[in-house]
Order: sequence, then C-alpha cells, then structure tokens
Amino acid sequence: MAVYTEVSDEALAAFLAEYALGPLVAFRGIAEGVENSNYALRTGAGDFILTLYEKRVDPADLPYFLGLMEHLAGRGLPCARPVAGRDGVALRRLCGRFAAITTFLPGVWPRRTQPWHCAAVGEALARVHEAGADYPARRTNALGPAGWPPLLERALAGHDAADALAPGLGAELRAALARILVAWPADLALGHIHADLFPDNVFFLDGRVSGLIDFYFAATDLLAYDLAVCLNAWCFEPDLSCNVTKARALLRGYAGLRPLAAEELAALPVLAAGAALRFALTRLYDWVNTPPGALVVRKDPLDYVRRLRFHLGARDAAAYGL
Amino acid sequence: MAVYTEVSDEALAAFLAEYALGPLVAFRGIAEGVENSNYALRTGAGDFILTLYEKRVDPADLPYFLGLMEHLAGRGLPCARPVAGRDGVALRRLCGRFAAITTFLPGVWPRRTQPWHCAAVGEALARVHEAGADYPARRTNALGPAGWPPLLERALAGHDAADALAPGLGAELRAALARILVAWPADLALGHIHADLFPDNVFFLDGRVSGLIDFYFAATDLLAYDLAVCLNAWCFEPDLSCNVTKARALLRGYAGLRPLAAEELAALPVLAAGAALRFALTRLYDWVNTPPGALVVRKDPLDYVRRLRFHLGARDAAAYGL
Repeated sequence: MAVYTEVSDEALAAFLAEYALGPLVAFRGIAEGVENSNYALRTGAGDFILTLYEKRVDPADLPYFLGLMEHLAGRGLPCARPVAGRDGVALRRLCGRFAAITTFLPGVWPRRTQPWHCAAVGEALARVHEAGADYPARRTNALGPAGWPPLLERALAGHDAADALAPGLGAELRAALARILVAWPADLALGHIHADLFPDNVFFLDGRVSGLIDFYFAATDLLAYDLAVCLNAWCFEPDLSCNVTKARALLRGYAGLRPLAAEELAALPVLAAGAALRFALTRLYDWVNTPPGALVVRKDPLDYVRRLRFHLGARDAAAYGL
Repeated sequence: MAVYTEVSDEALAAFLAEYALGPLVAFRGIAEGVENSNYALRTGAGDFILTLYEKRVDPADLPYFLGLMEHLAGRGLPCARPVAGRDGVALRRLCGRFAAITTFLPGVWPRRTQPWHCAAVGEALARVHEAGADYPARRTNALGPAGWPPLLERALAGHDAADALAPGLGAELRAALARILVAWPADLALGHIHADLFPDNVFFLDGRVSGLIDFYFAATDLLAYDLAVCLNAWCFEPDLSCNVTKARALLRGYAGLRPLAAEELAALPVLAAGAALRFALTRLYDWVNTPPGALVVRKDPLDYVRRLRFHLGARDAAAYGL
C-alpha cells in the first residue's frame, strides 16, 4: 500500500485553503504505488491526486519531476499535471513532507499485458521521448549504470541474504554487472526517460493509453534504455519466459514514431540486461532490508535475475522479435 | 492496504457487463480497510466501490450484511447501498471470490477525533439502532462474549508471544475475561449492531456524518455494547487516557436519540471492558499470526489492554462523564 503519512483533518483543511479548488468532498488513500503516499482527493473542482513525497525521493529532484510532467502534459501527453496553489506554486509542504496535487487521469492499468498494450505503450514512450526533447532541465539517473556498483555492494553487504535466496547469486550478479558495464554503449541518443514505465504506471481506456503516471524516477539518460526497461516490464510471462510477440509489438510501436538507430538496435540486449540488473538490485536491496511487518510487499529479486539471464544470452535484437 | 486480489482487465470487463452501469472509466485500489479488497470504481454512471470478500468473511453472512446496508440506506442512513446487476442480484462472484458493488459515499474519516465528532457518531449510532429495529434477519455475533474464550485460547496457544509482548499478559487476559463474563448483562435491549464503528468507518462532510461503512462485523447483539465499542474507538487519546469530554459527547449524542435504560448505563463499564478485550484479543491473535512481509500493519494489542484496565477500574458511568 502507499499511505505512509496520515494527513489530519486540520492539516488537510489548511493545505486546501492554499488552493482555489473549492470545498473538500472526499479523501481516500490509494493502494497502488510503493514510494510515496497517494490520496484520491475530490473537491468542488473535481478529482485530483494528492502525493506526499516520502523519504526515498530527494526534494531537490521534485522540480525536475513536476516540471517534466507539466511539460509533457503541455505537449498533449496524458500525464498528470501539477496543480498550483493560489500563489502559483505547485510544490508545497504538508505534514512535514513535500507534497503536490496533480490532476486525476482516467483509465485502468493492465493486470495482464496483451500485445496491443505493448504496442500502445511503445508508441506512448516514443511520444514521451519526442515531447521531452525541448524540456531544458537535466537530472542524472541515480539508478543508471554508474549507480549499480555501489547498489550491488549495498545489497550484498554484511548479509548472506543474496546467497540464501539462490546459491551463488552474489557472484552471478557481480559477473553480470562487470560484463554489462564493459559492453555499455556510450554514444546513443540521450533524453528524458521515464525509467519506470511498468504496467501499473500506464492507464488504458477504450483501447488507448489514457494516463502515464509516476515520473519520480525520470532522468536524463539513454532513450533506448527506457525502451529496455519496458521490454523487461511488459514482455515477460508469469513463467518468466520472454514473449516475443509482445516484445516485437513494443519495439515496433516505439519505432513507428521514433525509428531506432542501428546502434540502439544492436545495444538492445545489453540495455535490457542492464535494466533487468537494475530492478534485480533494488529488489534485492529491499528484500534484504525490508523489516518484517513493513507496509510493502517485498518483490522477488529472482524474477529479474531470470530476465537478466535471458538478456545476457541474447545475441541481437532478433531475441526480441526484430 | 486492502487489495489482496488483483482483478484482471478481462475479469473486470466481464463482471461490469453484468451491470447496467455504463462503460468503465477508472479503477484504483483503496488503501483503507484490512479484511477485504476494495477498489474505487468509476463508470459512466458515476462512482462506486467494488469489494471482493476475502477469506475472513463467511459467505453465508454476506446476505445479512448487504441486506442490512440496503435496509439502513432505505431508512435514510448514509450507508453504502449494494448495487444490483441487470438480474437484480447484488452479491456476485469475481476472481473466485464473492463480490459486490456499492454506492460511493462522500466525506473524510477523522484522523483525530474531536468531541463534536463523538457527539455526531453517537447520534448516528442511535439512528442505526433505531432504523435497524425492523430488519428481520439475524446474525450471531461471532466476536461476542461466547466467542472470546476460544479466541483467547487461540491467541495464547503454543506461543509465548503474549508474554513476550508484556510479562504476565496471558494471565491478565484470562483473569479479565473471567471477570467480564461473570458480570456480563443478560437482559439488555438487543438489535442490529455495527460492532466495528471506528473512526475510519465514519466519513464526515461539512460538520456532519456523511458515510457509515464496513458493516462486515455487524450482528444481532446488545445495542449498548455497540456504544461501548465506540467508547473505546473514539474517546481515548494517543497516550491511551480516556477523554471524558469525548466520552460524554458520544454518550449524550447517542442518548439524545435513544435514551439509555438504567441497566444499560450501569453496565457500561463491563460492556466497555468486554469491547476492549475483544479488540485486544483479535489484535493479539493477528500479532502472533501475521507473517513477516504481510500486507497488513499489525496493530499493537497493548493499546486495548490499557483501555481494558481503565474500564475494569471504572465503578460506573461517571467514569465516562455521565
């Protein structure tokens, strides 16, 4: 669940008084999301989402995230739009945290992805990349390749948890990391990437993408890496086999709008391996460090280790149906 | 959080096709609640709540619960109303569970109760009791006095957890239970009780009660016991002291509509002790039996042990400001 901070009636009333959104009508915690506290908020002006940014989000990054959402929404992307208070400021304080109200997006995220979802999300991702081209801010990807070695060491440090999860896992991850970093492409197109465009961050309505949410991992990084994240997130079956039909749909959906350069195509296996490693590492860190009784379901790191093995075994983009 | 069952797009679409509610617009998990899975559902016809009944709810009880909600809503109480499918049936199946759609209620539940909340909830509870008088079904309270001895034994069985939590806790609870059962009043007014009317089950809007939810512990039992549950739930401070101003407001709010009989007044301390014991026992059971990594936050049983001690020390209703 994702309500870490309870907002008192008085605090909420005082906060809403800073906006021209009319009277409070309803306020309910939202189950989805794991990083921040999210509430469905209804006022006289309609429906909104109230997000309180919790400790994993660096407040210094919030203007980048909110600015990117605003920028993309202004370019016609179905992103939540930050709502400013009466003073014109969207990023505010509530209950000792930074907080923002954003617009409500209709739609439902797909619990089971189908090839047409993959095609649609590929196209939406390409639109994000195109529309982001003239967003002037920058943010280093803290969870990009430079962040993986320290993340791996933190996840493995002082614990046998990795090897308890699967014998030899620590050594396997170290070897995979070394191999990925050596092969990492240096000169692919850069831009603003979502970096976490999983199915629960994409709403669909009437067969179309109706919402793109949770830009709180967005960063300036290789565009094709963003696509590699989606390959991992959208195109593997519950038995962790790669569904080539879905992969092809995703890649073609993307390339139909933003054609992939030959270097991007060639780098897909290593980019996808890096993306799988990134999620394996954060999941492993959380697995080792989530206290019993915590609010969050721990996600199995091995799901991404299996994807990682698949990508390391892929010779070229043909592994993804191209 | 309270989303235990993920509903696939296909299953949701097929389920909604059984209703005349127009097209699906949005579908989000709700964080509140611990027993069932709850979703905020928006269709062309407006906003609703979709509940999937999880394993703690006995399906045989669901017609009683839904019938009571419908009955009370029909009497003007702000209860969620079950929404029937095209065939006139409200209780249906979804994803292997019983499920129902109910109407959306506006309002916000109070994170910090104030005396005026207590007065309003007392009045609302009296209205529930009055309006329920001609609801013909019956349901034995599985968590009433007859259920406490086996619940205590299950919570204490095979574990040192109770005494690990507080030395001597097991013996204290056994002694309290014996004392409460001996003094339990036999001949007070019976009726339909909510039995779990905690602040997160009561919405307020514009200074009035706008919603009463979660009737899934409702039963036929002593009406004054329901009030004793509210005394525990609404009138204790974070330091677990009894706030007599709030208790008085609650009792007066209730008695203004449904005057308390002399026997009910006299029994308040033991009824309140029984209610505190009931929540101490279910919390203790959950404390001992909730696996690490579970979705639910374990609530401290000692919060209710402290209330229990207060009530066992109360000589009469003067302890609650009357």
